[in-house]
Amino acid sequence: MFKEPPNNSREKTKNLFLKLQENICKTLEYTDGKAKFIEETWLRKEGGGGRSRVLKNGSIFEQAGVNFSEVYGKELPQSIISQRPEAKDHEWFATGTSMVLHPKNPFIPTVHLNYRYFEAGPVWWFGGGADLTPYYPYLTDVRHFHKEHSEACDKVNKNLHKVFKPWCDEYFFLKHRNESRGVGGIFYDYQDGSGRIYKGNNKKGNAYIKSTHIGDLNLDWNNFYSLAENCGNAFLSSYQPIIEKRVKQNYTKEEREFQLYRRGRYVEFNLVWDRGTIFGLQTNGRTESILMSLPPLARWEYGYKSKKESREDYLTRIFTKPQDWQNDEDLEKFCIDNNIFD
Amino acid sequence: MFKEPPNNSREKTKNLFLKLQENICKTLEYTDGKAKFIEETWLRKEGGGGRSRVLKNGSIFEQAGVNFSEVYGKELPQSIISQRPEAKDHEWFATGTSMVLHPKNPFIPTVHLNYRYFEAGPVWWFGGGADLTPYYPYLTDVRHFHKEHSEACDKVNKNLHKVFKPWCDEYFFLKHRNESRGVGGIFYDYQDGSGRIYKGNNKKGNAYIKSTHIGDLNLDWNNFYSLAENCGNAFLSSYQPIIEKRVKQNYTKEEREFQLYRRGRYVEFNLVWDRGTIFGLQTNGRTESILMSLPPLARWEYGYKSKKESREDYLTRIFTKPQDWQNDEDLEKFCIDNNIFD
Repeated sequence: MFKEPPNNSREKTKNLFLKLQENICKTLEYTDGKAKFIEETWLRKEGGGGRSRVLKNGSIFEQAGVNFSEVYGKELPQSIISQRPEAKDHEWFATGTSMVLHPKNPFIPTVHLNYRYFEAGPVWWFGGGADLTPYYPYLTDVRHFHKEHSEACDKVNKNLHKVFKPWCDEYFFLKHRNESRGVGGIFYDYQDGSGRIYKGNNKKGNAYIKSTHIGDLNLDWNNFYSLAENCGNAFLSSYQPIIEKRVKQNYTKEEREFQLYRRGRYVEFNLVWDRGTIFGLQTNGRTESILMSLPPLARWEYGYKSKKESREDYLTRIFTKPQDWQNDEDLEKFCIDNNIFD
Repeated sequence: MFKEPPNNSREKTKNLFLKLQENICKTLEYTDGKAKFIEETWLRKEGGGGRSRVLKNGSIFEQAGVNFSEVYGKELPQSIISQRPEAKDHEWFATGTSMVLHPKNPFIPTVHLNYRYFEAGPVWWFGGGADLTPYYPYLTDVRHFHKEHSEACDKVNKNLHKVFKPWCDEYFFLKHRNESRGVGGIFYDYQDGSGRIYKGNNKKGNAYIKSTHIGDLNLDWNNFYSLAENCGNAFLSSYQPIIEKRVKQNYTKEEREFQLYRRGRYVEFNLVWDRGTIFGLQTNGRTESILMSLPPLARWEYGYKSKKESREDYLTRIFTKPQDWQNDEDLEKFCIDNNIFD
């Protein structure tokens, strides 16, 4: 049904994700200039382990968490088996890198990245993506982030990005707020070259069953490996320029308060809707590493409403809705007219 | 199988819960002395509505949220039908009061209360409880809170508290942290006088299936109504003395930081494990009212560890584990010896 992975598939993906963690941490540490990553390695009782790295109280990053893990198990949970029945009764292997950066300055967006690889008996697949969560709206930042990821996908196949962009919008969605977590990016799962449709199975909302089918593009293991590599490597160039541009902007106490308020939404998404987080917490994952994604400080305020036509209002009304950031001319004009373009 | 409710059951319970909200708000406002409750009434599209009251930035309460609601619907969700199959294909009615108080001073515990009543076709039941979440350990406070609730239960039947106390411990448990949310109190659900065993059905952990059976005590609707009334009325006397005692204690920046850190656990419980919260968010409940339980400010810190033998350490090791607060003499001696008794 689909092509065999190479003999050294596990070693190859593991090394890819280790290197990705290494490169990202090195660059972020250099960028921050003040704080250093602290590393903890850990073993999982059921098999495998990981390498967690956290940087706290930096000059730019209030917290930066970058995880690598490589884990083994006897039987995948039912939610995965229902997607890939061939995996049933097979031992499984999974490796990946995940990251969440919480900058201090509210003008620098929070960003999330995760790339992962699974094997179980006759099946294998790649998944992952990266997405941006700004607290203040700037269309150029959003466009830059999307452009870098779009180009990384295109290097493998020009038909991928048009699926992975809306898939991301659908996945990172807070149904109870009717809001996107942020401005999206790319997301994909169960990519094995078989061209099979992914069956959305999130009982908590099923928000992401529409845009998940790339069709049969005749892609093989090496193509999806390259996809993870390209997209992983695109991260720094997609995000670094945004830091450099925004870090010079001074912010007020009120802007910081708005950031903390919006970070509450980040917590809500991760604890209520994120399959990975919930799955990890319910299956004895390493809690501290899983919850490294949560912000160091967050705020809730009953009945908060931003002032009409303020940047906070634009963030909530426009930048937490799925948009065609690159091509929508009305959106571009609106952003220019309202000083949230550049 | 079980006794009929009185003809005016809906009106009676609704008025009970309205009055409970009213009394609690009046007293809390007087106690706070600075801030006032802001009220919002709201209607639910599917039927019914509510009255939400929030007090913010008080002298004592950083946030106090007290909700009343009375809602109707066509069909109860499967998770409830599986407990009460007779409710299937019947319209339902539910009314209740819920409350979470987040004091500013870390020496005053956070507290939660919820009492509710359901009807659906031939079945009716009461549920609810109250539980305390201290940030700094004081055995006398915990004992006082438990004593008041124990006495309120005893007025109806002396066999209730010994079930409702462990039920609370089991329900308010963060499996992913292996911690209780706080020091407990009482919790009960599906009380209809039938003496039926409650089938724990939380797929996310099933932590609370052990201590949920009061047996057939020959209690009727009026008894459970009185239970809600007694326990609801016990709240102020269980909590006010703790405020009065602790509010005079000055706290340091570090103690405040620890409170914010522990509030993170409150967020984790409510968003990951609390059936009511998750159910509400997934079924188009009024998000702002549901999430009124979340703290106004919370903190996460990767790899946090408190100093050994510090009060923070005792809180985590002793006051987030189920304990026999009233009778355990070793615990009492430990608390006296380590200055966390009074």
